[in-house]
Amino acid sequence: MAVSIDLNCDLGESFGVYELGNDTAVLKEITSANVACGYHAGDHNVMAKTVERSVANGVALGAHPGFLDLMGFGRRAMQVEPPEIYHLIIYQINALLGFCQLYHTSMQHVKPHGALYQMAATDEHVADAIAKAVYDTNPQLILFGLAGSELVKAGKRLGLNVAQEVFADRTYQPDGTLTPRSEPNAMIHQPEAAVQQVKQMMTKETCTAVDGTVISLKADTICVHGDNPQSLDFTRQLKNVLKAEGVSLKSFSPV
Amino acid sequence: MAVSIDLNCDLGESFGVYELGNDTAVLKEITSANVACGYHAGDHNVMAKTVERSVANGVALGAHPGFLDLMGFGRRAMQVEPPEIYHLIIYQINALLGFCQLYHTSMQHVKPHGALYQMAATDEHVADAIAKAVYDTNPQLILFGLAGSELVKAGKRLGLNVAQEVFADRTYQPDGTLTPRSEPNAMIHQPEAAVQQVKQMMTKETCTAVDGTVISLKADTICVHGDNPQSLDFTRQLKNVLKAEGVSLKSFSPV
Amino acid sequence: MAVSIDLNCDLGESFGVYELGNDTAVLKEITSANVACGYHAGDHNVMAKTVERSVANGVALGAHPGFLDLMGFGRRAMQVEPPEIYHLIIYQINALLGFCQLYHTSMQHVKPHGALYQMAATDEHVADAIAKAVYDTNPQLILFGLAGSELVKAGKRLGLNVAQEVFADRTYQPDGTLTPRSEPNAMIHQPEAAVQQVKQMMTKETCTAVDGTVISLKADTICVHGDNPQSLDFTRQLKNVLKAEGVSLKSFSPV
Amino acid sequence: MAVSIDLNCDLGESFGVYELGNDTAVLKEITSANVACGYHAGDHNVMAKTVERSVANGVALGAHPGFLDLMGFGRRAMQVEPPEIYHLIIYQINALLGFCQLYHTSMQHVKPHGALYQMAATDEHVADAIAKAVYDTNPQLILFGLAGSELVKAGKRLGLNVAQEVFADRTYQPDGTLTPRSEPNAMIHQPEAAVQQVKQMMTKETCTAVDGTVISLKADTICVHGDNPQSLDFTRQLKNVLKAEGVSLKSFSPV
Repeated sequence: MAVSIDLNCDLGESFGVYELGNDTAVLKEITSANVACGYHAGDHNVMAKTVERSVANGVALGAHPGFLDLMGFGRRAMQVEPPEIYHLIIYQINALLGFCQLYHTSMQHVKPHGALYQMAATDEHVADAIAKAVYDTNPQLILFGLAGSELVKAGKRLGLNVAQEVFADRTYQPDGTLTPRSEPNAMIHQPEAAVQQVKQMMTKETCTAVDGTVISLKADTICVHGDNPQSLDFTRQLKNVLKAEGVSLKSFSPV
Repeated sequence: MAVSIDLNCDLGESFGVYELGNDTAVLKEITSANVACGYHAGDHNVMAKTVERSVANGVALGAHPGFLDLMGFGRRAMQVEPPEIYHLIIYQINALLGFCQLYHTSMQHVKPHGALYQMAATDEHVADAIAKAVYDTNPQLILFGLAGSELVKAGKRLGLNVAQEVFADRTYQPDGTLTPRSEPNAMIHQPEAAVQQVKQMMTKETCTAVDGTVISLKADTICVHGDNPQSLDFTRQLKNVLKAEGVSLKSFSPV
Repeated sequence: MAVSIDLNCDLGESFGVYELGNDTAVLKEITSANVACGYHAGDHNVMAKTVERSVANGVALGAHPGFLDLMGFGRRAMQVEPPEIYHLIIYQINALLGFCQLYHTSMQHVKPHGALYQMAATDEHVADAIAKAVYDTNPQLILFGLAGSELVKAGKRLGLNVAQEVFADRTYQPDGTLTPRSEPNAMIHQPEAAVQQVKQMMTKETCTAVDGTVISLKADTICVHGDNPQSLDFTRQLKNVLKAEGVSLKSFSPV
Repeated sequence: MAVSIDLNCDLGESFGVYELGNDTAVLKEITSANVACGYHAGDHNVMAKTVERSVANGVALGAHPGFLDLMGFGRRAMQVEPPEIYHLIIYQINALLGFCQLYHTSMQHVKPHGALYQMAATDEHVADAIAKAVYDTNPQLILFGLAGSELVKAGKRLGLNVAQEVFADRTYQPDGTLTPRSEPNAMIHQPEAAVQQVKQMMTKETCTAVDGTVISLKADTICVHGDNPQSLDFTRQLKNVLKAEGVSLKSFSPV
């Protein structure tokens, strides 16, 4: 079984006077931060503050680019063509790189957000556009994608280092995709079941889909949430279990 | 007198389906392009195309960051505090740097746009915020500012290379600022008078203000426009006169 | 055959400094204007000017609400749920109503724009949300929808007056939908063929789809374009043919 | 002394996934709600919900239009010309009127937001533009403005009913304007002092400015806040004192 794993969380999702998430607390728990870049969330002030705080907490930094849809928080599928997706990824990654430089840190990874992440999981052309934008910016960047997804495949085709992402609190379909949030059984509400799912992923490299199918799955990084006290509690619980199993928590790059 | 001068123009100001300016024609006439970065104008697609075209035409590239005000095209003064101005400049310059890298070119300069440019001409704190953002991104970048302005002074204080910018078709106040566009005599409409103004700037390093005062002025780069056929004609006329005077036209960095 | 028909065109699509279309010329040719409401195009200044000009030209006014996607001009499908579509239609129609009141005119119709129009043609839930928003604002408003579409059916279910819209320069699929613009044969480029298509619609209430299928179709209003000189020429040509056929051109409401 | 007074609060300031304020609790305390209209805050979904809730709580509704500056929450002064201010007010009021109609209620008042409110307090041209937009939409609407301000005067010139607004927790300058938030003594932090200020306003129609000057002031409506538990506590405290003094709390229009 894997001896170490990364814990990532979306951060820097505030905008103007609007505050979202509990970044201060989350930064104490995670090893990698996915920082919103001003399209679906975040702004130039929030980005600076988030990079500064992540560095101060020894958390590795990643760009979290999304669709230009603040109103929908980048969660709504949009019919954006791959050449434009390539450009919007270039724009957002590089804007964040500016703040990384200010705080004398480097960027570890890129993880697309929301609808873009979902589309990249199954649409090869979207996945290729994202992977190429990451590669063309810096081939050393690690591409985060849903474990087993088209995005992971696209990254590998280009020779990028990829991190296969798994979810503790989401259920899986037999094809390895996440059950859509619109479905009643999309979420795993019991912490024990969620922890159990991660243990199975870590020890057996499998996951049991909603219909009982056992699917193969490699887990390099676990997505956790910080938007409410429960999710923070769950993250702490998950960490304790992982530690008890002898799994160390660390990011891919030294910070 | 100066033996060479740079001709700069604002470019890449289209947005989505909206086209603005005549970039194709302008790129054949100028030596430096100020590229909009998605706040007051421009978008990720337009930026890619503009950088590509500028490189193809051997025109040096600069970032042209502005206020987040597409509706007002960045021309409306906004009460944005210097720490935020610093961040919005960092964001925009670095987003454009991403596209420069794609097309294997470097960024030559930064010139703030519209209301930000005007505020930086007279407000020391705004000027310092902009200069510091440029310096912190890359101390080799050249800062473009109104000749004799606070922005030029702020750049010099930090040790940045600055290019003092002059306008052929705008009149000057006795304090060296541009006559605001709201004034009836803000523009010089006769091409001969505009050319004459530039000649005086180049040969005597002075300019005659609206009230007859002769002010000292150093001209490193001339701002020209490309938004209508007349401005393009004027630019060609100006170039002919400058060449006849033995002034060569070139950017500050080799492209 | 029909003795009269309405000619409608999208208007008021400029935004800030960005000008789009040739509203001055188009207003002399059409009978109904679809005015952008600030989401996919248009702004509060443009809306005021467009309403004023339409009234001055005796052209009937309609709201042309779209998705909140200025960058994509409302042409990109977005996964927006029907309850939100209902709200965004309410917002945009009523904002335009304010300008209609200023110029002492009433609103004749509502025609959704771009991707919203396309989605409403085939998605019953989207169609119902739009029709209900129109009805709840004012049941006297006429709903414009693609001839034979779900939107037309949704309007009829609520008891709204509907105007079935046809396109002169677009080809049709056997199911009555427009051939998507991404297909090579989406557009009819020859003016004669386009005029012929309209004549068939007017005289036989049919249209010949791309595969030769003859479909039934009722034409209450024809969509024309004004964004280039050719489209304006075509509109004039079409009007001449219609007049020669004894068809009078008029809007549904007196202006 | 006044026998009744209105208590107003800004509401509906959430946007997309971003929640702001505690509208549910505030609606139980106030008599008039100022609803954000989608420019500086609020969106079409939030507006619908806010109108619905206000009606359910018997709170009178007003439009709270602001600058198109979500990033700055409409609090940053912007150099927008009066003719455009007129248009942006028309747009926002009417968009909200659509939601009032849905919930079978009428709009009681209009109160400009943030920087627009501040500018309208001292700039006659801005004040006139706002007052005229309100009047042209519906001369029965009540215009809320800072007590003694240019906005109040502009409303009176047009024959509008105006409500002079006072602040419990803000200090006043000798000229009757509010001490800017950037000043250290802008806020009254002690609830007792704030209540005392309101009592003086209600009983003597005066207010003591920061330098001791006693200024005349008429109080028709008091602005309260709901963004934190303290402000809610203060509002309840203030209400108790007012009731003890025999002042009844009610809006201007029956709901």
